[in-house]
Amino acid sequence: MALKIYLAGPDVFLREAESVGRKKRQMCREFGFEGLFPLDKDKDVGRDAARIFRANCDMIRRADIGLFNLTPFRGPSADVGTVFELGFMFAQGKPVNGYANAAPTYLGRVAEVFGPLDESDPAPRDRDGHTVENFGFFDNLMIVRAIADSGGVLTAVEARDGSVGAPLAALDAFRACLAALRERNAGGALETAASSRRKGAS
Amino acid sequence: MALKIYLAGPDVFLREAESVGRKKRQMCREFGFEGLFPLDKDKDVGRDAARIFRANCDMIRRADIGLFNLTPFRGPSADVGTVFELGFMFAQGKPVNGYANAAPTYLGRVAEVFGPLDESDPAPRDRDGHTVENFGFFDNLMIVRAIADSGGVLTAVEARDGSVGAPLAALDAFRACLAALRERNAGGALETAASSRRKGAS
Repeated sequence: MALKIYLAGPDVFLREAESVGRKKRQMCREFGFEGLFPLDKDKDVGRDAARIFRANCDMIRRADIGLFNLTPFRGPSADVGTVFELGFMFAQGKPVNGYANAAPTYLGRVAEVFGPLDESDPAPRDRDGHTVENFGFFDNLMIVRAIADSGGVLTAVEARDGSVGAPLAALDAFRACLAALRERNAGGALETAASSRRKGAS
Repeated sequence: MALKIYLAGPDVFLREAESVGRKKRQMCREFGFEGLFPLDKDKDVGRDAARIFRANCDMIRRADIGLFNLTPFRGPSADVGTVFELGFMFAQGKPVNGYANAAPTYLGRVAEVFGPLDESDPAPRDRDGHTVENFGFFDNLMIVRAIADSGGVLTAVEARDGSVGAPLAALDAFRACLAALRERNAGGALETAASSRRKGAS
């Protein structure tokens, strides 16, 4: 049975959300996985926020692995809905993986969005005087370390499409992450882990 | 034994982080709770990202309740590190509560930060053409619905301190949330729930 990958991300806010979901599921199949895309259940839950929330949580519980689109969204960090789901899935002991259509680092992005950092203290500060994490990470350490501690992969491939804002829909980094996951699953390693997790949970 | 409240938020990035932590713990005591502030353990973990991450996760596991500072941070949404922790704690079946030093709604804030929304479709869109959630919520539905489904409280009190950026350190909404939690704990209701959770988990 193919491993189920929960496909999280602000992709659901794209005009072309449905077609991005189809493409992602298709690419999952190419790599031997089954993709679960949040919009797949939206026909049943309608526009009710409580039902959408619970359906997303249920889908995450059903999935074996998470693959999160961490491309910066409306600011220098990832979409908060996506990050909520990453924390929720990490707590279940499942591998959480990320990809982003932007280059590191978070520090550089804060400077890009809000102007030069104040470097006079040991810790760099933004224009409001708030410390900016300086670990050379792609985003907040809770995200990056959760991926590492879960045994996950984080891929970043800068996409430039000439449009305003981050090119949310690009799939090069997504493909790179699927390729890395297929490699990690060589000999069924991820499948064996998922199977013992399911036994432990039941 | 007083209930342990994990005090999450981008407060740790403030210049006055330590004194904000002291004030928050003191206010928790006034309301009959014990506050756990992330920086309380930083002397032991140093500047090592992996150890900071694991120490935060351990503190959340030890806590009975979460109280998250969801004041918008570097954009129209809450701090992603805080939101990761909210998802992680929600998954443990514990009540997650939030406060914010800004008024609703997310929709209004997106328009404020990025300019007028395109209202020609049924779903409003930002300048990049991405849908903006329109539930009248304070932030992304995953955050707001997790708080509600966990039995938590969300308080918002707009703080205006004249400085650039959101007034992260204001404590009026924090106090309002503690007052609501004390009321919910009348007769030890929250303590009883926490105690049966601990029994169930062991």
